[in-house]
Amino acid sequence: MQEQATEEQVQQVIERLINMGFEVHRSTGALKTVLGAVGERREFDIRDIEVLPGVGEVHRISSPYKLVARNFRPEGTIVRFPNGVCVGGDQVAVMAGPCSVESREQVLAVAESVRRAGASFLRGGAFKPRSSPYTFQGLGEAALKLLREAADKFGMLVVSEVMEISQIPLMLPYVDLLQVGARNMQNFNLLRELGKVRKPVLLKRGIAATIEELLLSAEYLMAGGNYDVIVCERGIRTFETYTRNTLDISAIPIVKKLSHLPIVADPSHGTGRRDKVAPMARAAVAAGADGLLIEVHNCPDKALSDGAQSLYPEQFDELMGQLRVIAPAVGRKLA
Amino acid sequence: MQEQATEEQVQQVIERLINMGFEVHRSTGALKTVLGAVGERREFDIRDIEVLPGVGEVHRISSPYKLVARNFRPEGTIVRFPNGVCVGGDQVAVMAGPCSVESREQVLAVAESVRRAGASFLRGGAFKPRSSPYTFQGLGEAALKLLREAADKFGMLVVSEVMEISQIPLMLPYVDLLQVGARNMQNFNLLRELGKVRKPVLLKRGIAATIEELLLSAEYLMAGGNYDVIVCERGIRTFETYTRNTLDISAIPIVKKLSHLPIVADPSHGTGRRDKVAPMARAAVAAGADGLLIEVHNCPDKALSDGAQSLYPEQFDELMGQLRVIAPAVGRKLA
Amino acid sequence: MQEQATEEQVQQVIERLINMGFEVHRSTGALKTVLGAVGERREFDIRDIEVLPGVGEVHRISSPYKLVARNFRPEGTIVRFPNGVCVGGDQVAVMAGPCSVESREQVLAVAESVRRAGASFLRGGAFKPRSSPYTFQGLGEAALKLLREAADKFGMLVVSEVMEISQIPLMLPYVDLLQVGARNMQNFNLLRELGKVRKPVLLKRGIAATIEELLLSAEYLMAGGNYDVIVCERGIRTFETYTRNTLDISAIPIVKKLSHLPIVADPSHGTGRRDKVAPMARAAVAAGADGLLIEVHNCPDKALSDGAQSLYPEQFDELMGQLRVIAPAVGRKLA
Amino acid sequence: MQEQATEEQVQQVIERLINMGFEVHRSTGALKTVLGAVGERREFDIRDIEVLPGVGEVHRISSPYKLVARNFRPEGTIVRFPNGVCVGGDQVAVMAGPCSVESREQVLAVAESVRRAGASFLRGGAFKPRSSPYTFQGLGEAALKLLREAADKFGMLVVSEVMEISQIPLMLPYVDLLQVGARNMQNFNLLRELGKVRKPVLLKRGIAATIEELLLSAEYLMAGGNYDVIVCERGIRTFETYTRNTLDISAIPIVKKLSHLPIVADPSHGTGRRDKVAPMARAAVAAGADGLLIEVHNCPDKALSDGAQSLYPEQFDELMGQLRVIAPAVGRKLA
Repeated sequence: MQEQATEEQVQQVIERLINMGFEVHRSTGALKTVLGAVGERREFDIRDIEVLPGVGEVHRISSPYKLVARNFRPEGTIVRFPNGVCVGGDQVAVMAGPCSVESREQVLAVAESVRRAGASFLRGGAFKPRSSPYTFQGLGEAALKLLREAADKFGMLVVSEVMEISQIPLMLPYVDLLQVGARNMQNFNLLRELGKVRKPVLLKRGIAATIEELLLSAEYLMAGGNYDVIVCERGIRTFETYTRNTLDISAIPIVKKLSHLPIVADPSHGTGRRDKVAPMARAAVAAGADGLLIEVHNCPDKALSDGAQSLYPEQFDELMGQLRVIAPAVGRKLA
Repeated sequence: MQEQATEEQVQQVIERLINMGFEVHRSTGALKTVLGAVGERREFDIRDIEVLPGVGEVHRISSPYKLVARNFRPEGTIVRFPNGVCVGGDQVAVMAGPCSVESREQVLAVAESVRRAGASFLRGGAFKPRSSPYTFQGLGEAALKLLREAADKFGMLVVSEVMEISQIPLMLPYVDLLQVGARNMQNFNLLRELGKVRKPVLLKRGIAATIEELLLSAEYLMAGGNYDVIVCERGIRTFETYTRNTLDISAIPIVKKLSHLPIVADPSHGTGRRDKVAPMARAAVAAGADGLLIEVHNCPDKALSDGAQSLYPEQFDELMGQLRVIAPAVGRKLA
Repeated sequence: MQEQATEEQVQQVIERLINMGFEVHRSTGALKTVLGAVGERREFDIRDIEVLPGVGEVHRISSPYKLVARNFRPEGTIVRFPNGVCVGGDQVAVMAGPCSVESREQVLAVAESVRRAGASFLRGGAFKPRSSPYTFQGLGEAALKLLREAADKFGMLVVSEVMEISQIPLMLPYVDLLQVGARNMQNFNLLRELGKVRKPVLLKRGIAATIEELLLSAEYLMAGGNYDVIVCERGIRTFETYTRNTLDISAIPIVKKLSHLPIVADPSHGTGRRDKVAPMARAAVAAGADGLLIEVHNCPDKALSDGAQSLYPEQFDELMGQLRVIAPAVGRKLA
Repeated sequence: MQEQATEEQVQQVIERLINMGFEVHRSTGALKTVLGAVGERREFDIRDIEVLPGVGEVHRISSPYKLVARNFRPEGTIVRFPNGVCVGGDQVAVMAGPCSVESREQVLAVAESVRRAGASFLRGGAFKPRSSPYTFQGLGEAALKLLREAADKFGMLVVSEVMEISQIPLMLPYVDLLQVGARNMQNFNLLRELGKVRKPVLLKRGIAATIEELLLSAEYLMAGGNYDVIVCERGIRTFETYTRNTLDISAIPIVKKLSHLPIVADPSHGTGRRDKVAPMARAAVAAGADGLLIEVHNCPDKALSDGAQSLYPEQFDELMGQLRVIAPAVGRKLA
């Protein structure tokens, strides 16, 4: 309460809190009165109390999520895939491939080279809505088939982005890990449907989302029954313009403290520039990331999308070599 | 080109640009070489040039949008509604109503009071996906019927948010202005479908979207054939935590310079706090906004969502009186 | 405390808080324990508690400032100047003039025209350290003499920026209002010295400063004994690049709620572009600002600094006319 | 130029550019005219052209700095200290010590333990102006003497922050590396004086400073004649509130590309929380940092400032062990 709050105002706030289902504890100090509301109600909007007369400040003490909190599974979640690959244990999982699937030749060539270098997941976009209405929009289901074929040939798993509820049934036969893009992090209808699916989900942080909001979106998935959730840091929007986004490496140790969910980093989208991908990939692993999502293209200069941020296969090779040196420093190993 | 770029590198860049369809102009200075690429290709990713060897910096000179640019319609767009109401001319259009539709009694009461105060649009949410999975999610089609009934009774227009492609046919019979929320500003599939609709669209700026990105999303709508687009400033995410978002009032004169589209402001979501709504609404009109979107509730303390940012009817009345004084300063009037 | 905190951990935190001089209130709920620390100690770093084992979250309930808080002077501060001009009452005070003082002819010409239009303060920079080491750096004391001469001739007050402790004695004979620039908002040594001065201070918000930090810097001045403080919103740094900074208009009603100090806005530095100055100046007054700081130059095209954001005298005239219409909407008037 | 610009407007702009000393190249395309201005004038304010009638957009192609640019010293700068320690070569230099110097016992204890773990610089604050006027403000010259004594005893170098021009002569006898804090990054008077000093300077990035602005401030130092400059990333202000600031790890590879200057990272201030320091320190080295600045305290729970972000000596030991594993991945080694 504000210092000059009247006893009547204090009573109104207490009454309101009790009506909302809370138990109220009151501390009256020399200068001001502090009220503590204790209860189970998680959907409470603190601003409803903030605007009452005489109220100074309102703070939420309980975190607004429950299932994703670290103490729900203190030992940490390990997401297990059919072929035995795990995300979240002592292995650093690497997911690599082109931004968009462009042709059979391209997908096979990239898959072979990233597999040889140690990647366990093949990534690639099938649907590519772009910020300009005048650019390449993706191959759709044909792309999914090519990803599956290439992954099976080289013993890999497929991760690809789902953009709408209607695409879910289309993707399920081809994909091992369903990616939710940054722009859909708060598409709650999509999250609700994915909560019902029995395949793991990779949830990317929105460019303006706080870590708490990222975890709250993960809570949507878990509340729906899907406990195989991996979150992904891919850069936030800041005032710095040299990079497309600022990859928030500190999100990695923070998520690991707040939640039991595995977290991977995407340095390709996080920086938007090829020459910054390797330094940031190394940084993510050194900070404790459970995996990486990296764009690699057999011929980036001719890529139909995001070629500028795709590594050449030989750059990816070199990076994997560096990561094999770094991982043991944090008690991890690379496949 | 960088100062130390070789002639061979310069030639490679020139060749690449010509292959991309540009005409190239070369200026060789004492210190460095500058290349100008002139052409019609709008979907060009400047990073493809940035990563070539020897390149210093690349700047896009042409704006990436065409139909929304001011010089496409220098006189400015006026969106005209069936009952004669216009957005974009010399009138300031006020859209008011509850955050969510909760009951027939509520909608009728709010509609009557905001109409009497001078609002020409009734706003209200039918679908309310929320960031927490544990809160009120909206009444759906029943809400749309109540909005239509109330609007017809008091001679108003209906504006309500569409969140998915599948909701479009459901909403068309009830709604005069289809609102695209901040989280969907870059849902390009949704924008593409709305481009085919023959009803006006109100496009809200995403909380991390630049003004250029907002206009590019408007371009999607216009490229699809829907020229009746109104954009809306509703606050961006900044480091300041006192308000939920920072309402970027300067976006108003900027959009008016860059584009012919009308722009309105939403001070309710932009600030998130009732006592800041009136000052920011006045500021928006003083800066030249074509309209306002304001949450009003007959009983904000009992609102099922966002009650803390809803005005009481008498506060809305008082605000409208202030706006009637301010509007003439910018050559406008209120209904 | 975290849900899994042990009783021993709870006791350690309680002990630590008591050692720090707080009285501790304990609420034990079904899920977790909440501790309330009540006391007078304002210099407390909440992170010292956050890092203790078992602690979940720590919130500061009391505001960290005291003298600048609204309840210290609920009626609001009015800063009174020798010639009877006031900042903070029912008048909107306008401070106008060139970015830098360049010549006697320039200062007299600008002073005459802004005075005629209604400005009561003449602004102008004497010291101009710039972000590039290769640009114009200001005329120094000669500039101060010219400002004083022009202000006296036209019955105005002088406001000019002080950049270092050593400049204070130099400026006192010439200046009525000492401006602290955005980059010095947290130059605490300078603030401490200005706290001892018996002249009003205009404190500008830093481009990355929260409103709380701005008020904490004002507290430095008041804690030193100088109660004549005016704060100034001049734009914050955000991801938007079209404007130099984003003028945070919402800071105006927020400061007026949290503090008794007057607040003015600087739309010239806040936008950096001449054609955005008038809309943002109107917005600031409509939102309740106590005054404006505006750059006007008799010949902006030849200005030695910031010409691009300076108004032509006739634009300033027109703006003042608009402000005379708007001010009464918020119960204010222009000189 | 805008598409609808008249020939007369084009001629006016050309004339203005020529008057400013540029050579002008003109490209006339189907839709618009592009003007290229080539010349040596670095202090040019692009907004002076932006506001001319008919102008569409203006871009600066040449970087505004010269001496700090990578091509000024393509091989990279190595800052050499009297005892043979280097910053910028193949060694990762570690600077460690308490936030503030508090007592002789404290400084000696911390110096001994960080030296044994491998640090080559002893850091510590002598002057501590704080954002609250009610907190500990530092020991001053006594602190400098203690730092020198401890450094000499254990064969270390001293780095400490200089906050004002008047402190420079006081510090020179005691300090090997003069640190400029984030709040002073654009204190150009201070930078100008430090440009004349013949001791290395460690320049910290401001929390709202772009990388270009950081380099421009380094240019001030070099323009004054001091070529021994090390820059430091210490976190920027973003919307994320979980950490005090967001340590921008990507600034490390970016600075190394744009400039020849060494760059170190400060994960203590960059995160503000002890448990995030080690992950971010590892990330910085993995991304290619030339060194680290880390707060270590023999008894953080009793520290007079920033105890919450100080490592315990044993945590620092463990971190140094991890860094010895990581450094070889990027071709570096630890002392």
